[in-house]
Amino acid sequence: MLSPEEYLDSLRQLNPKVFLFGEEVREVVDHPVIRPSINSVAKTYELAHEPEYEELMTAVSSISGKQVNRFTHLHQGTHDLINKIKAQRLMGQKTASCFQRCVGWDAFNAVDSITWEMDEALGTDYHHRFRHYLRWVQEEDLVVDGAMTDPKGDRSLRPSQQSDPDMYLRIVERKEDGIVVKGAKAHQTGALCSHEILAMPTMAMGEQEKDYAVCFAIPSDSEGLVYIYGRQPNDTRKLEEGDLDVGNCKFGGHETLIIFDNVFVPNERIFMCGEHEFSGILVERFAGYHRQSYGGCKVGVGDVLIGAAAQIAEYNGVQKASHIKDKLIEMVHLNETIYACGIACSSQGIPTGSGTYLIDMLLANVCKQNVTRFPYEIARLAEDLAGGLMVTLPSEKDLSHPEAGKYIRKYLQGVAHVSTEDRMRIFRLLENITTGLAAVGYRTESMHGAGSPQAQRIMISRQADLEAKKELARQLAGISYDER
Amino acid sequence: MLSPEEYLDSLRQLNPKVFLFGEEVREVVDHPVIRPSINSVAKTYELAHEPEYEELMTAVSSISGKQVNRFTHLHQGTHDLINKIKAQRLMGQKTASCFQRCVGWDAFNAVDSITWEMDEALGTDYHHRFRHYLRWVQEEDLVVDGAMTDPKGDRSLRPSQQSDPDMYLRIVERKEDGIVVKGAKAHQTGALCSHEILAMPTMAMGEQEKDYAVCFAIPSDSEGLVYIYGRQPNDTRKLEEGDLDVGNCKFGGHETLIIFDNVFVPNERIFMCGEHEFSGILVERFAGYHRQSYGGCKVGVGDVLIGAAAQIAEYNGVQKASHIKDKLIEMVHLNETIYACGIACSSQGIPTGSGTYLIDMLLANVCKQNVTRFPYEIARLAEDLAGGLMVTLPSEKDLSHPEAGKYIRKYLQGVAHVSTEDRMRIFRLLENITTGLAAVGYRTESMHGAGSPQAQRIMISRQADLEAKKELARQLAGISYDER
Amino acid sequence: MLSPEEYLDSLRQLNPKVFLFGEEVREVVDHPVIRPSINSVAKTYELAHEPEYEELMTAVSSISGKQVNRFTHLHQGTHDLINKIKAQRLMGQKTASCFQRCVGWDAFNAVDSITWEMDEALGTDYHHRFRHYLRWVQEEDLVVDGAMTDPKGDRSLRPSQQSDPDMYLRIVERKEDGIVVKGAKAHQTGALCSHEILAMPTMAMGEQEKDYAVCFAIPSDSEGLVYIYGRQPNDTRKLEEGDLDVGNCKFGGHETLIIFDNVFVPNERIFMCGEHEFSGILVERFAGYHRQSYGGCKVGVGDVLIGAAAQIAEYNGVQKASHIKDKLIEMVHLNETIYACGIACSSQGIPTGSGTYLIDMLLANVCKQNVTRFPYEIARLAEDLAGGLMVTLPSEKDLSHPEAGKYIRKYLQGVAHVSTEDRMRIFRLLENITTGLAAVGYRTESMHGAGSPQAQRIMISRQADLEAKKELARQLAGISYDER
Amino acid sequence: MLSPEEYLDSLRQLNPKVFLFGEEVREVVDHPVIRPSINSVAKTYELAHEPEYEELMTAVSSISGKQVNRFTHLHQGTHDLINKIKAQRLMGQKTASCFQRCVGWDAFNAVDSITWEMDEALGTDYHHRFRHYLRWVQEEDLVVDGAMTDPKGDRSLRPSQQSDPDMYLRIVERKEDGIVVKGAKAHQTGALCSHEILAMPTMAMGEQEKDYAVCFAIPSDSEGLVYIYGRQPNDTRKLEEGDLDVGNCKFGGHETLIIFDNVFVPNERIFMCGEHEFSGILVERFAGYHRQSYGGCKVGVGDVLIGAAAQIAEYNGVQKASHIKDKLIEMVHLNETIYACGIACSSQGIPTGSGTYLIDMLLANVCKQNVTRFPYEIARLAEDLAGGLMVTLPSEKDLSHPEAGKYIRKYLQGVAHVSTEDRMRIFRLLENITTGLAAVGYRTESMHGAGSPQAQRIMISRQADLEAKKELARQLAGISYDER
Repeated sequence: MLSPEEYLDSLRQLNPKVFLFGEEVREVVDHPVIRPSINSVAKTYELAHEPEYEELMTAVSSISGKQVNRFTHLHQGTHDLINKIKAQRLMGQKTASCFQRCVGWDAFNAVDSITWEMDEALGTDYHHRFRHYLRWVQEEDLVVDGAMTDPKGDRSLRPSQQSDPDMYLRIVERKEDGIVVKGAKAHQTGALCSHEILAMPTMAMGEQEKDYAVCFAIPSDSEGLVYIYGRQPNDTRKLEEGDLDVGNCKFGGHETLIIFDNVFVPNERIFMCGEHEFSGILVERFAGYHRQSYGGCKVGVGDVLIGAAAQIAEYNGVQKASHIKDKLIEMVHLNETIYACGIACSSQGIPTGSGTYLIDMLLANVCKQNVTRFPYEIARLAEDLAGGLMVTLPSEKDLSHPEAGKYIRKYLQGVAHVSTEDRMRIFRLLENITTGLAAVGYRTESMHGAGSPQAQRIMISRQADLEAKKELARQLAGISYDER
Repeated sequence: MLSPEEYLDSLRQLNPKVFLFGEEVREVVDHPVIRPSINSVAKTYELAHEPEYEELMTAVSSISGKQVNRFTHLHQGTHDLINKIKAQRLMGQKTASCFQRCVGWDAFNAVDSITWEMDEALGTDYHHRFRHYLRWVQEEDLVVDGAMTDPKGDRSLRPSQQSDPDMYLRIVERKEDGIVVKGAKAHQTGALCSHEILAMPTMAMGEQEKDYAVCFAIPSDSEGLVYIYGRQPNDTRKLEEGDLDVGNCKFGGHETLIIFDNVFVPNERIFMCGEHEFSGILVERFAGYHRQSYGGCKVGVGDVLIGAAAQIAEYNGVQKASHIKDKLIEMVHLNETIYACGIACSSQGIPTGSGTYLIDMLLANVCKQNVTRFPYEIARLAEDLAGGLMVTLPSEKDLSHPEAGKYIRKYLQGVAHVSTEDRMRIFRLLENITTGLAAVGYRTESMHGAGSPQAQRIMISRQADLEAKKELARQLAGISYDER
Repeated sequence: MLSPEEYLDSLRQLNPKVFLFGEEVREVVDHPVIRPSINSVAKTYELAHEPEYEELMTAVSSISGKQVNRFTHLHQGTHDLINKIKAQRLMGQKTASCFQRCVGWDAFNAVDSITWEMDEALGTDYHHRFRHYLRWVQEEDLVVDGAMTDPKGDRSLRPSQQSDPDMYLRIVERKEDGIVVKGAKAHQTGALCSHEILAMPTMAMGEQEKDYAVCFAIPSDSEGLVYIYGRQPNDTRKLEEGDLDVGNCKFGGHETLIIFDNVFVPNERIFMCGEHEFSGILVERFAGYHRQSYGGCKVGVGDVLIGAAAQIAEYNGVQKASHIKDKLIEMVHLNETIYACGIACSSQGIPTGSGTYLIDMLLANVCKQNVTRFPYEIARLAEDLAGGLMVTLPSEKDLSHPEAGKYIRKYLQGVAHVSTEDRMRIFRLLENITTGLAAVGYRTESMHGAGSPQAQRIMISRQADLEAKKELARQLAGISYDER
Repeated sequence: MLSPEEYLDSLRQLNPKVFLFGEEVREVVDHPVIRPSINSVAKTYELAHEPEYEELMTAVSSISGKQVNRFTHLHQGTHDLINKIKAQRLMGQKTASCFQRCVGWDAFNAVDSITWEMDEALGTDYHHRFRHYLRWVQEEDLVVDGAMTDPKGDRSLRPSQQSDPDMYLRIVERKEDGIVVKGAKAHQTGALCSHEILAMPTMAMGEQEKDYAVCFAIPSDSEGLVYIYGRQPNDTRKLEEGDLDVGNCKFGGHETLIIFDNVFVPNERIFMCGEHEFSGILVERFAGYHRQSYGGCKVGVGDVLIGAAAQIAEYNGVQKASHIKDKLIEMVHLNETIYACGIACSSQGIPTGSGTYLIDMLLANVCKQNVTRFPYEIARLAEDLAGGLMVTLPSEKDLSHPEAGKYIRKYLQGVAHVSTEDRMRIFRLLENITTGLAAVGYRTESMHGAGSPQAQRIMISRQADLEAKKELARQLAGISYDER
């Protein structure tokens, strides 16, 4: 397992083509806008070496029998699924950001069982290929971007109906030694922190959409890959002097639009190639794992937000007011409800054919559905506790100005024993999570990551078994089945 | 393990003193108002004999090594805690009622570990006594009413401050061979379905309230016990001819006010006698188990309610409308969120000193807090799907009347292939759960059973560890600990 | 204007055909199950004679220039629309029930402007006929049941597609002096308190459904009319001795299924006869007025429920707990939000062609949509404040029993200075509104009266003018209109 | 009435001392960070000259009889109060920002009646002074910052208990011709768009806090005044090239911390000077008017947000999906509920002693309480409809880059007939309101402006008249008053 420093070094050896704020960026690792993202991922390396967190952050590989970073592990039982949630909560607590390594992890577990099922059904050899690939990933301790979401163009049209056929990633050429793919993946979380890209189809593809049913892995600096960095609220504060106004100066996350401009993929890196009938279940399974994930990571960020809200209440001198205490309780209650869903869908996991464990799909979707709601309410309550200064606070530069700074220190003092600067730091952390850089992860990603709310509702509907429930009702009402 | 018939017979041998609607009732088991309650409990006996449900409904006793009804079992691991939830959901599905046997079950598990801890701390012999008692309960397959809630009088005053000292159950006399107790327990669920009463204190008692710190078990027809049956919405419909208007004619639940009018308790049946410092933790632990319970039973009733709502939508011909489907999804989502909390607090259980497993207390309280909200919203949505007929439907007698019945059959027909009577049966089942007999269990018990909402909030507050969360926030904000 | 006694006498002179609990009822006015409903309506007569309420409860007729009961008045301005809301809130406060006279009132105002518009467009003479009829209603101070909701059968089929063509009320014969109608109206609130039935179509009818586009008024004891009384939770408690268990022994409401078994309507009583193109707008307008109404009446009932919750908190000794106070504030907040909607849609009313004022339709629908939610939450909070005794309380007969009563008085005492009986009375009132007789009005009617929730959403969608809002967004975003 | 250009010129003649991002700013009006705020205020001048909006945007002064900008008008009836709401909604629609002129307007109306009442009670001459001042404001068509919120320091301590007595603005010297004040006002909305500062006390002051009970007006560039500009999310995007990434490039709002560093106030500009017993009611009344205001302005911003959400749904090609339509309906419903509260509290306004009309205080507080909730839910739904691109979109500079721009145009195309740039513009507008510059106004100001949520709850509690509600309950329950 790599150390954080080794991880950074390994990234430095990559040479991806990246656009950020209208310029081509050369130094990804040390770019001040990108680095906080990389720090978040690096924390997954750091904690894996701390004895205190060893059980959560590492696992014994089912492939090699060696200890590996848990973020590359195939879940071998419900204990692994539960430890996943706990590791994610821990990481959320330590970074207050999206730490980005889950998307590849969830892709590993989904692709693992699906390739097994494809091989079973079709006699293909994808599972062996994939296990070989994953063994290498585990041994090298790599970060892999699980890339699913296509740009989709006009959403009322299917992939094959789009005016531009590239709106969904597709095979544009089949060669003897591999394929050439074209298209893009949007919202790619942690792409620039990754050594590899593991691409998957974005939806169930039909008979006529075989070219879109493609799954493969490539190095993140492959020829033809182009990254365009997404803007986030307050992103340029990271370019300013000082560290206060960013709110969380060390950690962050990012998303990019990845263009696949005729990228070649060698055969041994291909895990689906036209088997459209397996595309839907792959999406469903990946989404299932990722909906579970949010039952851990968002809870960890929630812990920090609750802590910040409690801290600012104390700094403001209102921590004993009953309505303040009650709002903190509500925040905890909502946060733990999400956690309960994450734990529950893990606890009720079942083995797939490949031996890799799958979460309970109904409960994982219920988990994510709550994630599309509760973080917003937790954030609203945090903003309530914060008070208006969260968005009217002067800049750090003002604080540093001899004249303005004097006024700020005098008038923005809260309780007497806490420095104005510390109070400002908590306000900025609150801003960071609720409406700044980390709001991308805590709000929008909670909403749309792993599928937008309606996607979960469709899955809940499918898993709900309403027929059985109707039968229960009829029996108790004294209605015989035949009369139905 | 008794058969349902043997259970009924065993109840028939008891002779409790019962008031119901202003009269002393002699025949408890066959009383038409009480019988549906007993049927619900009898279902715990019936299902225990069905191979399909054996794993959920029975367990191997940790005391005797024999197979016992799970509702008398001490949880030996998280699998037992999870199976508890699943057994409760099953029972809720089969009865759409409170099946009443959990309160004693939760009392067993709470008293077991607390008596162990008392003995450890104080050198008493309560645990051995209790295990001896419980072995007998398991072998005889008894129903035991866990009796906790005192009437409380003026709630702004402590037990010792009440104008009437009997507002909390207390020891009024200590004899060589036992004690005499006086007071009452309110809201006693399933009291008349029980062979035994296991009384516990209702709150943490202080130094000056030792007489109130008392825990013991007595036969349910002990001298001095008086039961006054609580009215429920539509209770007298059970006395009317026909079975339709009741909604769920077979199953129900009930509560009584139990008076302890100077009841003698022999020493071997006493499990706490003045050790006030253990009263609070006993309440907390019992409440914890019971808050977990609702993550199972209410979900099962919810399944029936969702099924009834889906069924009436179909009978009305609107099952394909998108807003109808969406409301059903929401009902399922809320119901499964409760279930997730029930599973999660079980999955994260830990062993106590006595070997009996305890749920995760934070998650159990979060579970119950959601139960004080979601069943109300599920019921509201069910009422939305039902339409107005749920409360404007003519009586079964009207349906049976030659002239009125003709009109009703004609005009209250829904979709053509379903009889008007069947449609009426589903309306009445919906009424039963949302605003009729079972609403006592599905609404009020969800609100106040195992402690009112504020009680959970206090527990959530205690378990939330806000200090640790504040520390996380300060670290990320760059505030050193000492400056706090 | 009649006195309450004169009103009762006038009802006694009617001879409707009524089925209740399987029997034909002769004495409607003095029937213990029906009388509380009639008392509620009688309150509209009583308060009209009290100087304190004269402004709210009476108005000067725009037809005759005489003072009339406001419940028969055509709204002549926004002050009338606002006074309507205030009169309804007052009545809700005084009865804690549906007082049933609004449905006819709302029908008057809707039919008034629609008949005017029909005459304008089609050259018919309906408006004059209607005004003549209404003048008589005002002078005689009558109660008129506005009858709209047809049974509807299979809701996926239109009226003309039903297997039984009578599932919607229709003209089955056209004679020289009138028409013969057949069908039924369901959920007819206050039907047995009414002198007249004013029937309207239930939805927009098409070209092929002209026979269903019919509006007319007939005496409530017309030949061929049959009433079947709807069951309500706890309805038979009104037949028991004593007054305590009913909760609100004086007031109530009721609904009936009204059968029109070939009923003759003379020409001068017909206000629409085949003009299907005006059926939709009549429904919409009536529904609009009735959705406004709930912004008054339900608020009044809410006042009582809040009062009862505050009272029981005091009787329990917990009125100073911060969470109790906070829940009362929330109840008030939700209740007043509904009221604000009622006032707002009234304040923004506009005149129709006939001079009668119409509410703002968007805001009236918003009002009703909130009514489908907030009373449920207010009730939930009331149940929270009440505690479990609301549904476990012994019967009044137990209280009267010499032995049981003694125990009840002792153990169900709350704070020392309030009698147990008074405390029980408040519990029963809370039960009455949340899950008993008045829950039909406060919950189900809030949900489905004046149209189910989805009906308001459709209207909100139609009134929202999203195109204008999109234009605002495009302008601010710097997008030129043509590019749209 | 000034034209927008004249307004800008008048501002240019002022010379306030301003710190922004650590530097002293000289050119306020043309500063790219500040200008959008000024544009929003300028819109109040612009629309006043458009015949279409004359009725809403102007009024006939009750002081001079001349036409004045409505934003300087004293409300002379409920029609004025309602027109206020409508003018505010209009301004919100046109700017999608806080337009900042209301705070002074609300201060005028509050100070007007309070000075009248002070004079009545105490024989002072404040009212005449104030009317004289306001006549001048109206004639000169000035913008006045109503300055209320003190920094407050340790909120568990009263003003006189703070370790620094300046944490609340106070009189530090009394001279013959005036007073000298010291302290600060925080969160001063629109301060730099204002010609004048009208300072008021922030809370009810006690006997020993007379120096804090002070109300006065001074020019905004008075000697000793220092402004420190508050940071907002994405504020520096206004300094970047291009206009796309800002989202709403023309309009905005701002807050500053205003320091009063020993500022002299001449006698004729003082409207309260030690009359502490009137400080609480002044706060209450100002807050009441300002809580009403949010029932207009936030609704207008909501209109834009709903429009943007509807527009992006169309650009994404999903506008026909039933869940999309349903979410738009919900947004409209919530937005109009706020509007209804704004209209209702205006419609129920009453005259004060000075003739100026006051809103209904209960309903105004209910209005604001809803504003602390619904905009958050509307924003959440907008983020749901937007999809993830709102926060992962590349920068405008990337769009302008020859290579990156090509990819962006190709892959971020939505429906075929809309340009990628237009789609990006709507995303950025959505970001602006939900988590960018205007989120300060739409979220935080909705939460804390005019008082934090708990402040409204306290006022609701005071206005609720629970005693009357309890009396209603007792009467209906059959409890005589004396037994209470």
